[in-house]
Amino acid sequence: MSEPRQAPHDLEASSSPVIVNQGGAQLAARLEAHWSKPRVISPPKGAPPWDIPPDADMLVTQPGPWLAARAPASAPPGWPFNLRFIQALSTGVDSFPRWMLEGPPLSCARGVAATPIAEFVMAAMLNFEKDFAGLRVRQRDQWKSRPLGLLAGRTLAIAGYGAIGRAIAARGRPFGMRLIALRRSDGPLDPDVARAPDFATLTAEADHLVLSLPLTTQTHRLLNTSVLAGAKSNLHVVNVARGQLIDQEALLAALDEGRIAGATLDVTDPEPPPEGHPFYAHPKIWLTPHISWGDAKSGERAAAKALANLDHYARGEALEDLVEPALGY
Amino acid sequence: MSEPRQAPHDLEASSSPVIVNQGGAQLAARLEAHWSKPRVISPPKGAPPWDIPPDADMLVTQPGPWLAARAPASAPPGWPFNLRFIQALSTGVDSFPRWMLEGPPLSCARGVAATPIAEFVMAAMLNFEKDFAGLRVRQRDQWKSRPLGLLAGRTLAIAGYGAIGRAIAARGRPFGMRLIALRRSDGPLDPDVARAPDFATLTAEADHLVLSLPLTTQTHRLLNTSVLAGAKSNLHVVNVARGQLIDQEALLAALDEGRIAGATLDVTDPEPPPEGHPFYAHPKIWLTPHISWGDAKSGERAAAKALANLDHYARGEALEDLVEPALGY
Repeated sequence: MSEPRQAPHDLEASSSPVIVNQGGAQLAARLEAHWSKPRVISPPKGAPPWDIPPDADMLVTQPGPWLAARAPASAPPGWPFNLRFIQALSTGVDSFPRWMLEGPPLSCARGVAATPIAEFVMAAMLNFEKDFAGLRVRQRDQWKSRPLGLLAGRTLAIAGYGAIGRAIAARGRPFGMRLIALRRSDGPLDPDVARAPDFATLTAEADHLVLSLPLTTQTHRLLNTSVLAGAKSNLHVVNVARGQLIDQEALLAALDEGRIAGATLDVTDPEPPPEGHPFYAHPKIWLTPHISWGDAKSGERAAAKALANLDHYARGEALEDLVEPALGY
Repeated sequence: MSEPRQAPHDLEASSSPVIVNQGGAQLAARLEAHWSKPRVISPPKGAPPWDIPPDADMLVTQPGPWLAARAPASAPPGWPFNLRFIQALSTGVDSFPRWMLEGPPLSCARGVAATPIAEFVMAAMLNFEKDFAGLRVRQRDQWKSRPLGLLAGRTLAIAGYGAIGRAIAARGRPFGMRLIALRRSDGPLDPDVARAPDFATLTAEADHLVLSLPLTTQTHRLLNTSVLAGAKSNLHVVNVARGQLIDQEALLAALDEGRIAGATLDVTDPEPPPEGHPFYAHPKIWLTPHISWGDAKSGERAAAKALANLDHYARGEALEDLVEPALGY
């Protein structure tokens, strides 16, 4: 993020920087320990997350409270008060209202989940190709040989080539997969990654199609009937981003009609799907509970990222991973 | 294999090379098509595999018939008749009798299964770390978050650094795993792979211990009580080589007492384990039916390797992947 260096802020020198922390008790303790004289405000449970004390300098937040509170369509009176910086603990900012993205500078925790998500994607692809979960032998008469599928030679198509997409490519590469990716910007791909001109082409080329791109007005229901019409019959879709990227009815129809082969869905719309939703029992769908991003140290990494950015802000340094409001991520 | 070039044999020029094929009908067809004037003999089903017509020049074989026929302890009268070269379609030659290894030059199909086996090992490690098979949500109340394990930062310990071991390391590397390997010879490892001085040290360092080495008199029951005593409590063992490399009772005791965490066993001793064997229902064992090596093109690759070596023999060129009888592989 090539933000110009800013003049130093008075935060570190000031008597007491005021930070509203919506990231939980562990983060509160880290914030208290990090600054010399901070005042860390933890709002009461259930309070609307936009209800900010007027003396607060910074807000550390995450999607949960915003989803729970159903933010109003336009900014509430007084917003953004005296907030000068907002740090999100999540990579995605699609759960925040538009007016929040257009307020004070907002940074996200981009890249923090790249490693666990890339590992999850590799697990999903291997499980699909080899039916690994189905290989387990539990009694003697199940001891039967059959040829297993391979990732080698398959085309790994990655929609979204940010930190997560790159991490997936890095792991798929030594498997001998052919790599192709779609990136919004003209931003570089890696030398052995083909650039797809559009999402329909990316999908048509794919044996495994991974959705690792942000949800925006442009990407809403990107994977729909028209795009699925061009897919190979052996296509396996992996969604580790947002459920709303997929037209779920169109996906189900393609699976049921055998036009594509399978899907690993770590995200759905809504989450969880309502009781009895076809995703739960579908033989071609591997449904997991929005879990790909998290490992034992996820919270720690997000906290470290937040603290580093608060330091940047206080010192007038460039902020990392600023969200571009016009793009929505 | 740095075999000196030999004087050309008369096989190609001769009126009719005679090849005994114990590799099945598809291979017979390929052999027939490959030579200008071959005579391919397919022995009757159930015939002892050492029962070779005296005019045969070459034998193409595999473990199955030798295991089924229970080879005698010493060479049968007349062996090896006029055989000048034996090509095995398997990587392992431990199922062949000692006297066969000490007869005419024997080549194996080393490396043919490296890709599928390495993929299987990665699937096994990811399945273990993430409990991937257990993540699937089948009804609404199972939608619950929990942190997943990571391969990143784990130590991948590889016993046997041939084609298979190298293929495993290549795939584990971009996951950020620490690599350590044991290799019998002073043969090179890759620069980022630590060399373990012995198997006990390798095991003690391991988070994931992969057995990808041949079964010989030296490696029989290599993983035993004494070695397991030094293992970490989170150790996951992956055996894609031979069941006899493991003292199975010792492994079960270590798992039952919580001294190690899990095992993915694609091979056992015997195969399959007898009905009711604890491997079938053990919650810490993922048992698969000696299936890691096989994909849709395995037979094709083994056949290509056999044909290439028969060509080498006929032209007096160096043979590939010759077995060293003294080592047993």
